[in-house]
Amino acid sequence: MDRIKRNERLAAMSRILTASPNRIYTLSHFTELFGAAKSTISEDLSILADAFSQFDLGRLTTVAGAAGGVMYRAIPSKEKVVSTLEELSKRLSQPGRLLPGNFLYTTDITCDSDLSELMGEILACRYYDKAPDFVLTMETKGIPVAMMTARMLGVPLVIARRDSKAYEGSAVKINYISGDTGDRIETMALARRAVTPGQKALIIDDFMKGGGTLRGMHDLMKEFDVEVVGTGVVIATAEPRKKRVDGVTALMVLEAVDREQGSAVVKPSEWVYKLN
Amino acid sequence: MDRIKRNERLAAMSRILTASPNRIYTLSHFTELFGAAKSTISEDLSILADAFSQFDLGRLTTVAGAAGGVMYRAIPSKEKVVSTLEELSKRLSQPGRLLPGNFLYTTDITCDSDLSELMGEILACRYYDKAPDFVLTMETKGIPVAMMTARMLGVPLVIARRDSKAYEGSAVKINYISGDTGDRIETMALARRAVTPGQKALIIDDFMKGGGTLRGMHDLMKEFDVEVVGTGVVIATAEPRKKRVDGVTALMVLEAVDREQGSAVVKPSEWVYKLN
Repeated sequence: MDRIKRNERLAAMSRILTASPNRIYTLSHFTELFGAAKSTISEDLSILADAFSQFDLGRLTTVAGAAGGVMYRAIPSKEKVVSTLEELSKRLSQPGRLLPGNFLYTTDITCDSDLSELMGEILACRYYDKAPDFVLTMETKGIPVAMMTARMLGVPLVIARRDSKAYEGSAVKINYISGDTGDRIETMALARRAVTPGQKALIIDDFMKGGGTLRGMHDLMKEFDVEVVGTGVVIATAEPRKKRVDGVTALMVLEAVDREQGSAVVKPSEWVYKLN
Repeated sequence: MDRIKRNERLAAMSRILTASPNRIYTLSHFTELFGAAKSTISEDLSILADAFSQFDLGRLTTVAGAAGGVMYRAIPSKEKVVSTLEELSKRLSQPGRLLPGNFLYTTDITCDSDLSELMGEILACRYYDKAPDFVLTMETKGIPVAMMTARMLGVPLVIARRDSKAYEGSAVKINYISGDTGDRIETMALARRAVTPGQKALIIDDFMKGGGTLRGMHDLMKEFDVEVVGTGVVIATAEPRKKRVDGVTALMVLEAVDREQGSAVVKPSEWVYKLN
């Protein structure tokens, strides 16, 4: 075999590491793949790390210890987070998006494969240090962003259903309260085998008004003896101020609606401007 | 600014191109980003292309013409497709996966962020030449793989719902026949604004038995004047042989079930072994 050049190693390593975010690759993985010395691979990694940081393409992190190695996290700069969410807020504030009943049409944005990935990147960043074992969402609209968040964290997605389905086996089913006035009781179910007691969950959804569905997901995790290490949503409404779940990270806030224009006022959340 | 070295350009270009599969980047994009000559960027791209092909990491394709440039497609080698699907088939054939009613538990595999990406890669490969404008799926279980297929094709995901929802605005609703005996009538709905007449759809779902749900999605697209350019599923059952939709690409085939063992016989589809 021809000797593999640094150029080729860097091209390949960049692809391999960024394709599996938040997963540790040992140096031996690369020394074997490329037939190169550890010191050579270390130099490669430092070039990669510099290139990623220079062009705002995420971060390479070295993990020390026996299980150590290197991993990639798609952590965007503050500038990228702000510009992404300002652009999305602008699109979400366009006339015609407000539907009867004051619902905001967001599906084209949450189902866009690039945008859902960007939102997943930003949400994942807030929870790397909490090391969730999986991302939980409730069907249906939250799934794409939750999936991309899970991808960035390198963990599986778990989907709670409105009802228990035959093809998912025995399930735990709870009732939860949804709707503005707290008078609507709904059902949420999750297959028994979907999660393991003692795991840690990150809850992700697309929209929060009162927080009833998120509260339901928290309660559901309690039934499974799973700790919830965080809750994130794409959009939270400013009103009601009091939500049924505390400490939710929202990417954007829906501040007001203009029924005549059929539009909403959506802005990036304040924490976005306080990032380092 | 320091002059950017080839090493750094390759690391950055690898990340940029592979993060947006099937999207054309002009050479000017990179000449501007790196302050380098076109000839230099062309050389970079040929090093990248070689490295990707050498390590089975996908393919760089040059697109000629005024709107030309370069794009990345995560096309796995035949060996990778075969080994991925053989491994998945083995997992899906494990005892305990067969649920009452002969349903196969697949959620842990379709919701795994790595595996769903791999399946999306393999499905997308079959439809690059058809250039779909979006991927359509029906809630819920097909969403993760459909999302990853859409990501690989660089197009949005569109999700048909069991019912029309207030927060998606006016919708087209159809009835379709599901179930073995063709005696169950169900409803499928899609927001009017979700797609545009004249577009091309790729339909992706997780499971096909009779093909009723897929037939429903085909009929739904007819209502929108959208052409269906392909239909793909993760698993198709061998029986019934006659499906309600023709020409479906299945990654794997469920050939038989063993009720005592609570297991199924799942194998990669035959076309997988005939790939070039």
